[in-house]
Amino acid sequence: MGNIVNTNAAYLAKRCADLGAVCYFQEVVGDNPKRLKETVKLALSRADAVLLTGGLGPTQDDLTKQTMAEIFGRKLCRDEVTCEALKAYFKKRGIACTENNFRQADIPEGAEILPNNNGTAPGIHIFDEAKHVFLMPGPPNEMKPMFEESVAPKLSELSGGVIYSEMVKVCGIPESTAETMISDILENQSNPTIAPYAKLGEVHFRVSAKASDKEHAMALTEPVVKELKKRFGAAVYTTCEKEQLEDAVIALCKEHGYQITTAESCTGGLISARLVNVSGASTCFGRSFVTYANEAKVEELGVSEETLRKFGAVSEETAREMALGAQKHGKVEVAVAVTGIAGPTGGTPEKPVGLVYVACAVKERVWVRRYWFGGDRTKNRENTTTVALAMARNCILEYDGITYHQEML
Amino acid sequence: MGNIVNTNAAYLAKRCADLGAVCYFQEVVGDNPKRLKETVKLALSRADAVLLTGGLGPTQDDLTKQTMAEIFGRKLCRDEVTCEALKAYFKKRGIACTENNFRQADIPEGAEILPNNNGTAPGIHIFDEAKHVFLMPGPPNEMKPMFEESVAPKLSELSGGVIYSEMVKVCGIPESTAETMISDILENQSNPTIAPYAKLGEVHFRVSAKASDKEHAMALTEPVVKELKKRFGAAVYTTCEKEQLEDAVIALCKEHGYQITTAESCTGGLISARLVNVSGASTCFGRSFVTYANEAKVEELGVSEETLRKFGAVSEETAREMALGAQKHGKVEVAVAVTGIAGPTGGTPEKPVGLVYVACAVKERVWVRRYWFGGDRTKNRENTTTVALAMARNCILEYDGITYHQEML
Repeated sequence: MGNIVNTNAAYLAKRCADLGAVCYFQEVVGDNPKRLKETVKLALSRADAVLLTGGLGPTQDDLTKQTMAEIFGRKLCRDEVTCEALKAYFKKRGIACTENNFRQADIPEGAEILPNNNGTAPGIHIFDEAKHVFLMPGPPNEMKPMFEESVAPKLSELSGGVIYSEMVKVCGIPESTAETMISDILENQSNPTIAPYAKLGEVHFRVSAKASDKEHAMALTEPVVKELKKRFGAAVYTTCEKEQLEDAVIALCKEHGYQITTAESCTGGLISARLVNVSGASTCFGRSFVTYANEAKVEELGVSEETLRKFGAVSEETAREMALGAQKHGKVEVAVAVTGIAGPTGGTPEKPVGLVYVACAVKERVWVRRYWFGGDRTKNRENTTTVALAMARNCILEYDGITYHQEML
Repeated sequence: MGNIVNTNAAYLAKRCADLGAVCYFQEVVGDNPKRLKETVKLALSRADAVLLTGGLGPTQDDLTKQTMAEIFGRKLCRDEVTCEALKAYFKKRGIACTENNFRQADIPEGAEILPNNNGTAPGIHIFDEAKHVFLMPGPPNEMKPMFEESVAPKLSELSGGVIYSEMVKVCGIPESTAETMISDILENQSNPTIAPYAKLGEVHFRVSAKASDKEHAMALTEPVVKELKKRFGAAVYTTCEKEQLEDAVIALCKEHGYQITTAESCTGGLISARLVNVSGASTCFGRSFVTYANEAKVEELGVSEETLRKFGAVSEETAREMALGAQKHGKVEVAVAVTGIAGPTGGTPEKPVGLVYVACAVKERVWVRRYWFGGDRTKNRENTTTVALAMARNCILEYDGITYHQEML
């Protein structure tokens, strides 16, 4: 019906590519036994392995297992271990476990159970007539870990080679500039390949090499990663796939023994929440200030009423006072403040929707930058969050005298 | 390769449903003539109309038109009007128009050209052997307007009917319980159909009816939506597709003239940020408190040091004092507070990772509930955010004497 965007397909295609498994077809089909059967049979006729997501839940229209059992002529048997796990799961949460829920413990005879550590429906691996079929739950937060833990190792084994990749993550340089800076490398790539991914306010370069084993693949990527780091300098905040900008900011604060806080208007807590994404953030993050109303900016941060009256809430002056106020009231070394017009209403010709001021105080120094994002409310707030984190990192480094190529976005 | 999420498919599926055209299959295939031909032939064998996106560009791997021409046994002819439009387009932008670009003016003989007002590649409509094929460009900003202007009117004509749907969104009731509550309706559905979607702490039921026109389709959905609302009572927070839980909370606060605030530990600002998602939140939201460290809980919210010492930061007592402190310091009627162990570290046998206390103060009353989520850091924090919003809604209603079936999640 189109109310869910299929992000699972993109995730699996990408991971298959990483693992050296070529994915030629993706198909989406509704919860209808006849069409599902037709689709799976077609997939089995043209591939060595078929990955399915969704339809493993406890309700009547979750019919993937039933259909697979029919295709392979197997019975569904209730798995006692899974039943016990389900009972424990529901008991722990104080919820009644209905008969429906036990349907999730029905497994095609002879199939392997793939544990689900993030939900109730286990995954299933069927190996039959030289074909591998993997059934995984639909919710991405259950599917992804199951894929990584149970499916990826098998696919890698099947594809007969490994792909090793590192991600060079660059912030503060627009995509086109970044690509120009390494155009000679991009033009002559073969193994490793270099794929640029433009992200909001960031560019990521995935450097992937294929070889017979991980060690050889790593040896191929290493010199390229080194060269990219040399070209981009301090704008590279990580080469680790899993690390986000907030990890880099927290790591930098830890390294310096700094405490950090935020003062947020239009983002409403998004920057703060990003910092708290980092496990162990507590060593350098203790509190932050969400001051959406003018009154709150005055009372919580000590922004002067005159500044608000004279320059408005969305101004360089207010952003500066917010950062300084948060630094003082939060008793910290580093404070990031944002104030902007997220939209869709509230814009004027002088201060249009998408106008944002970001201020950053590091000890006795303060920086303020003006940005304009021409997106909708959600996009403007997300953009603001990213540039605020990038700016915190940038200002902490600049305070130490480390500068790098950085453009306004 | 998985570096692009297929949002076109979701858009087209949704719009087809709106127009009464049933979409049973979606297929994704790479730029390979043999596989593309196989895929299109299969699609033609099972549908009255086939929508294709992408592959209309000027480069060698844009081979959709060539492949379609082969399938239908037609020649590609260069269209003069399109050539002139291309020349004008490039001239206006001061870019040289290369020979490659004119490939975009090649049209299968006898096909209808669909104008592209947002890019250079025109769309194409082929009608052959009682089947309709629509070729549209891949970039969403070109595809969507072309679909609306040229394809949608034709599909609507072909389908001879419309589908109208409403979304009954329920919070606070687990999926299996919710389905049991309406199992008699689910078992006897035909037109309208009822499709359940389990979300984090929520269940959504899409009620869709097909009829000759929108009015008749609405008349079919109405009694079913009414019955669901009766069964679930106040647990239904909206029947509008676009409305989220935070919209319902803000709407309820506006209705009551309440101001709302949050006091957040493990969520780090996520609840606050959800409230600020709502455009116009400023009428009832002015500030919130992110108090991650104990010191901040004491200083910003007035939580007593004794409470923290005696019961710990993650306790019923601390949650209650956080809510009351936020209510007092924020000068508001409604305050939601959360404190929990997000993980992956910090858990103990008595207080495991995933344990969360949520407190809600409405005027002089306070509720505190204990939840346990067995997920990772991200999931625990997202779950906490959802239950906190659901609880705010629930407590505001309960204060008015409106109660409904609600289970701990």
